[in-house]
Amino acid sequence: MDQNPIPLPKEYPVPHDFHSNLRKKFLDFFKKQLGEQANNSIVFLKGAESIDKHDDDQQYRVEQESNFKYIFGCDLLDCYGILEVESGKVTVFVPKYPESYKMWMVVFSNEEIKEKYRLDDVLYVDQLEQWIEKRAPSKLFIYKGQDSDSKLISSYPQFPYLSKYKVDEEELYWTLNECRVTKTDQEIEILRYVALLASESHENVMRKIRVGNKEYQMEALFKYHNFVYSGCRFTPYECICASGTGGSTLHYIENDKTIEDKQLILTDMGARYYGYNSDITVTFPSNGKFDEKQSIIYNAVLDAQRQVFASLKVGVNWGDMHFLAERVIVQHLLDAGLLVGTIEELMQNRIGKIFFCHGLGHLLGMRTHDVGGYNKGCPPRIPELQSLRFRRDLEVGMVFSNEPGIYFVDFIIQEAFKDETKARFLNQEKISEFMYVGGVRLEDDIALTANGPEILNLVPRSIAQVEACIRGEDWKLIQ
Amino acid sequence: MDQNPIPLPKEYPVPHDFHSNLRKKFLDFFKKQLGEQANNSIVFLKGAESIDKHDDDQQYRVEQESNFKYIFGCDLLDCYGILEVESGKVTVFVPKYPESYKMWMVVFSNEEIKEKYRLDDVLYVDQLEQWIEKRAPSKLFIYKGQDSDSKLISSYPQFPYLSKYKVDEEELYWTLNECRVTKTDQEIEILRYVALLASESHENVMRKIRVGNKEYQMEALFKYHNFVYSGCRFTPYECICASGTGGSTLHYIENDKTIEDKQLILTDMGARYYGYNSDITVTFPSNGKFDEKQSIIYNAVLDAQRQVFASLKVGVNWGDMHFLAERVIVQHLLDAGLLVGTIEELMQNRIGKIFFCHGLGHLLGMRTHDVGGYNKGCPPRIPELQSLRFRRDLEVGMVFSNEPGIYFVDFIIQEAFKDETKARFLNQEKISEFMYVGGVRLEDDIALTANGPEILNLVPRSIAQVEACIRGEDWKLIQ
Repeated sequence: MDQNPIPLPKEYPVPHDFHSNLRKKFLDFFKKQLGEQANNSIVFLKGAESIDKHDDDQQYRVEQESNFKYIFGCDLLDCYGILEVESGKVTVFVPKYPESYKMWMVVFSNEEIKEKYRLDDVLYVDQLEQWIEKRAPSKLFIYKGQDSDSKLISSYPQFPYLSKYKVDEEELYWTLNECRVTKTDQEIEILRYVALLASESHENVMRKIRVGNKEYQMEALFKYHNFVYSGCRFTPYECICASGTGGSTLHYIENDKTIEDKQLILTDMGARYYGYNSDITVTFPSNGKFDEKQSIIYNAVLDAQRQVFASLKVGVNWGDMHFLAERVIVQHLLDAGLLVGTIEELMQNRIGKIFFCHGLGHLLGMRTHDVGGYNKGCPPRIPELQSLRFRRDLEVGMVFSNEPGIYFVDFIIQEAFKDETKARFLNQEKISEFMYVGGVRLEDDIALTANGPEILNLVPRSIAQVEACIRGEDWKLIQ
Repeated sequence: MDQNPIPLPKEYPVPHDFHSNLRKKFLDFFKKQLGEQANNSIVFLKGAESIDKHDDDQQYRVEQESNFKYIFGCDLLDCYGILEVESGKVTVFVPKYPESYKMWMVVFSNEEIKEKYRLDDVLYVDQLEQWIEKRAPSKLFIYKGQDSDSKLISSYPQFPYLSKYKVDEEELYWTLNECRVTKTDQEIEILRYVALLASESHENVMRKIRVGNKEYQMEALFKYHNFVYSGCRFTPYECICASGTGGSTLHYIENDKTIEDKQLILTDMGARYYGYNSDITVTFPSNGKFDEKQSIIYNAVLDAQRQVFASLKVGVNWGDMHFLAERVIVQHLLDAGLLVGTIEELMQNRIGKIFFCHGLGHLLGMRTHDVGGYNKGCPPRIPELQSLRFRRDLEVGMVFSNEPGIYFVDFIIQEAFKDETKARFLNQEKISEFMYVGGVRLEDDIALTANGPEILNLVPRSIAQVEACIRGEDWKLIQ
């Protein structure tokens, strides 16, 4: 047991006007879209509910729902919040706990909550009905809609007395989502912080993990690093720590295997701070040295990622970027002899999809797969890009992942071998030799700023950098 | 960034016959209680359901419901399980996922699940109705009941077709809970392992935490230690890491304050392995040295804990142990001048409750607050011991916490000062001087074995031991 004291934390200080700036941005957009309808109206949101752990007298640690956090900045559970559209005034309604709860848990007074979260007013949930009655809004805008990825309906305020009012369940969903699609500079600042934090954590894992360790030990160290330095108790998503062929399962979260010699390790892990997420994937050799086949696949993915990055600018369509990545990958697989045919034939028959079987990237923000990907008025999802989570033209302020990958997924490849229309493009013998590689994914977090695209994370990418990092050298000095 | 590689893991190998032994124990008891009713019947359980994260395309990491784990040993979510009472045969019904899921997540075949969890059969949930029809059991026993602490109703199988059968929703709840109240030797072995693991993690935190650190950094290090050595991704309950007066909030989980000089730190944290929990609390000075008042309170609690431990044996009533702890605490507070009166007056007026405001301890096992505390036929909860989670006579095989405490809870003490019946026993001036102490809780995990009581954890307890531990010395050599 080493005796080093725990280092002091280094948390990022979120600016005091963070949420008031977001509200201003949203209200400007909302009023512009809604016109007179917005007059004397209110935006009515439901925060995250607490979740009991089975029938036990415990609850899960639940994080605030992202829209509620965005508008009100408030982390408390089981709340409702109202934003008055004309004045911009925010009122949060909190649960009233019995006095005796104070013995068991920290119960803030409404005055303390108001001050802590810089709200205009804090009342109890049981005052909500009366408040709305007295306020007599012209309309209540409610955030109700279906997520384009999960197909789940958002949780929204449901009270019998709402039938007395004009309730709009259409406009808030797409307008608020649209507002969240582009990030303010203050938001990008947090996203940069959280990407750099996760980068450090990844680097720490890459330096310290060895053959013989368990996959979950990477998850343990990564989470510890985020938590101890920055108080990040949560991760944006379950850590993916795959060794060997595990890397070919896109969301592998078992993390229970022992790491072996000559494997590739794929870790897809992010940090989450103040509700903002990073989402970063690295792939590296378990013994510190890529072999020839691993290098071929790795460099194909890296080339795709770099060519996409070089093409990013305002107005470029993300669907086109996916096809660009696929083309680069296919070209590399062709050059290496895994595929047969011309690049055009291979693209036309979507042979790349057998290996690059997910979308190139997704919007990133308060959700790992952020909202608004297929918003009203945007290019719709198309069958050819079924797994792509958005297909919009890029705008300043968008933050998204750039994550091409090549995977040797056994059941997909076996099916392709049996499919005449595909088999003729596949060099079965050669592909079989590459199956052990598992998967390579390289995922960067990109912000498209007014100055162009920026990679928010800082992790070793070239083979020389990755190998130097594992050796404990300063890889940042290397190309 | 230090360069030490991650150490190799040291997981506990759970014996292969672990669950078959539990099932045997349960069935013996069940058949004895139910007699002929048990003939040709089945026990029908519902496992934990997956929980969506808001409307996001992500889910929380959920652990298996404890009865399901106990009987079937299976960790998969959204399952049902049937135990045939006469043959002891176990069949688990798992969800059927679309073929395409295999690209995204690890999907085991039914054959693999059967082998992994040593089940007799694995089928799909959609085969359940037909299976029951074919099996034609005389009765279906369903685990339905209200938890004595949370007052929540357990989750249980609910299908329209069950109305065709004789369903019993009474007997399984209390019999299975009763079976779980005493632990097998194999269960105690895991509980010992998980208590020692958490002990090491506590020691690690005590050695490394310093004034200036944040409370959550203790949580971070504790979790890391459990996770990296033993794959413990979950904790049994939210870590309580309180500095200063935060220690007087019993379930303080904010953990967001900076640790200051001359404070007591109270950490209540456990490890969870294979669904079994430890629950351990230590209290120690932030600067490594107890001051005089901190010592008085600490030694009062330690004396209560030791006197309780010395009194533990089969047949002793746990309610009596609570009163014993309260008496020791009251005597110490009287000796130190915080209280006024005779020990008998103070006990009669329950003045101890102002400071020792929770129950002495709870059953411990697959739940932190384990089942069966107020089971059928057991001494009921009484108003005088409202917070005590069981009041049974002790039996061989029981595992429970021994956790006396003294807390200076501002609102409770202020109320007591205003209450004539209590105020006359309180030395207000003296008590006010002690408010900064916050809280002291010392929590051990005890197994009552055939050889007597055993403390499963191993953490420094005497003031000399605690101070030596913080200094990095071998406290185990010290009394």
